[in-house]
Amino acid sequence: MSLNDISDLVSQLGARGAKKVALQFPEGLKRQAAETAAALKSAGFEVIVSGDPCYGACDLALDTLSGGADVLVHFGHAPVDNRRNVIFIPWAVDFDISILEKALPLLPEKTVGLVTTVQHAHLVPAMETFLSSRGYEVRVSDGAGRTPLRGQVLGCSFAAAKSTGAPAILFVGTGVFHPIGIALATKARVVALDPLTGTAQEVSAETLMRRRFAVIERARGAKMVGIILSTKSGQARQALAKRLAALSPGAVIVAMREVSPDELLNLGFDCYVNTACPRLAYDDQVRFPKPVLSPQEFEILCGVRPWDEYAIDEIP
Amino acid sequence: MSLNDISDLVSQLGARGAKKVALQFPEGLKRQAAETAAALKSAGFEVIVSGDPCYGACDLALDTLSGGADVLVHFGHAPVDNRRNVIFIPWAVDFDISILEKALPLLPEKTVGLVTTVQHAHLVPAMETFLSSRGYEVRVSDGAGRTPLRGQVLGCSFAAAKSTGAPAILFVGTGVFHPIGIALATKARVVALDPLTGTAQEVSAETLMRRRFAVIERARGAKMVGIILSTKSGQARQALAKRLAALSPGAVIVAMREVSPDELLNLGFDCYVNTACPRLAYDDQVRFPKPVLSPQEFEILCGVRPWDEYAIDEIP
Repeated sequence: MSLNDISDLVSQLGARGAKKVALQFPEGLKRQAAETAAALKSAGFEVIVSGDPCYGACDLALDTLSGGADVLVHFGHAPVDNRRNVIFIPWAVDFDISILEKALPLLPEKTVGLVTTVQHAHLVPAMETFLSSRGYEVRVSDGAGRTPLRGQVLGCSFAAAKSTGAPAILFVGTGVFHPIGIALATKARVVALDPLTGTAQEVSAETLMRRRFAVIERARGAKMVGIILSTKSGQARQALAKRLAALSPGAVIVAMREVSPDELLNLGFDCYVNTACPRLAYDDQVRFPKPVLSPQEFEILCGVRPWDEYAIDEIP
Repeated sequence: MSLNDISDLVSQLGARGAKKVALQFPEGLKRQAAETAAALKSAGFEVIVSGDPCYGACDLALDTLSGGADVLVHFGHAPVDNRRNVIFIPWAVDFDISILEKALPLLPEKTVGLVTTVQHAHLVPAMETFLSSRGYEVRVSDGAGRTPLRGQVLGCSFAAAKSTGAPAILFVGTGVFHPIGIALATKARVVALDPLTGTAQEVSAETLMRRRFAVIERARGAKMVGIILSTKSGQARQALAKRLAALSPGAVIVAMREVSPDELLNLGFDCYVNTACPRLAYDDQVRFPKPVLSPQEFEILCGVRPWDEYAIDEIP
């Protein structure tokens, strides 16, 4: 964090009359904690750092805040819900806009929906300008709900892609999880561009789908089913967990903070249904000792959702 | 859990008018969760299981309770503090009392203090009778504070050993951590008897002490110091953390639930001071990427406690 950013933050904290400040960083930025804390201490604040794992604004350190801080400063994410006493500090990652050139051979369509993740959202206007200059009609959705930034998607919300209604979506960001989710959520053709490596590819949900249907089959016959209910601020889907638990006599709601392979093994259920961060079921199945189904997959297993209405799990 | 135990629990829950019940099991008993939950569901209760790691009554699933349950049933431990709406269900582990014979050759003293852990506390009267019949004056402390059972010690409280004032202490239980802690806390001679294997040994704190002084030396020169403050119900020593943070300009309080090697690595402090479960510093140093000092060790490092006043960390 630059000295300039710190002085902005100091002003914001001063304007709120904050004296005791809690700081929270996601895993990739945790190394900034000690230095940022030291800078704020020098500026006269009492500082407490949240040391728990954090992967999103869905996991606010509200216990650290309620432990006596006046305000929580959450770094690296945009808010997924409205919170008093929380300041969100984005962590912008720049790249050379001309790298979008690499995706164009994969985008013969005239109309393209553009989406990205929070750390690149500040570059959306420049990306629009670039694509327009190459003759595209570019559609970008306004921020709303869980994704307040223009063109922003999350691993649990592809609304900004869906609402473009475009036949092709360009996702600018790292990894294939978001674009595969977009493909499932929109049925559009999706091209993913990694802006740091310049790798562009059309993604397909086929492999994921095959794996998921295999997991559903492995869960068949499970007697004891743990319905995972997150205790994290932006992942706690109580009504959903309750509805799913009613689908099977052997289902019990299991409240958890971190969903880890060790804990699922210790608990000893035959299978689990994940109502916490949707990515857990899709990304981490190989690490889990038992099948971990999404809500929609459990509905298919219980026969209350037809197979051809498979849908990717999103948090509304 | 036997059917008899379940019907006792059902009566207790009925007497409280509880309808929605949260269940919490420590790691070694978590496999009981699904079955116990099913039995209570059959008895007409709405059930939610806490799936987070749990190692003691210092780590009550208060978030699961406050998430809408009428009562939390905590298995396997005696209470460390007074809580409304929490029922503690012990998990008694029996053994053949005559196994105490194995410890007698190591106990030439006439007067012996007797201590044990929660799962064997129900056998204290029988152990007293056995030792008396062998000619010992047996001293057992009444339960108090964090250790409410007669003769009970915890990894963070050796008060029941200290208050016997006996020249020799017999610890009946598993592992060497408790007896080494007792040796440091009482300066008495301590004999440990594992009642499941029959192994008896006199313990020495020498090796632990040598290791700990090496860790203190490794922490010398640390600029950025993370003072770990637990967010668990019975481990949150706020005043202590605040006092320790004032000892060094580079010290920052870091609030954590699970203190894991990964998180300590991610945070990137040069060393840590542990005000959470005292055993973390002593037992897990080999797993930690940086020195993790006890409060007393940090005081020695900062020069506010003389080396020869080394003391084992206990939670009062």
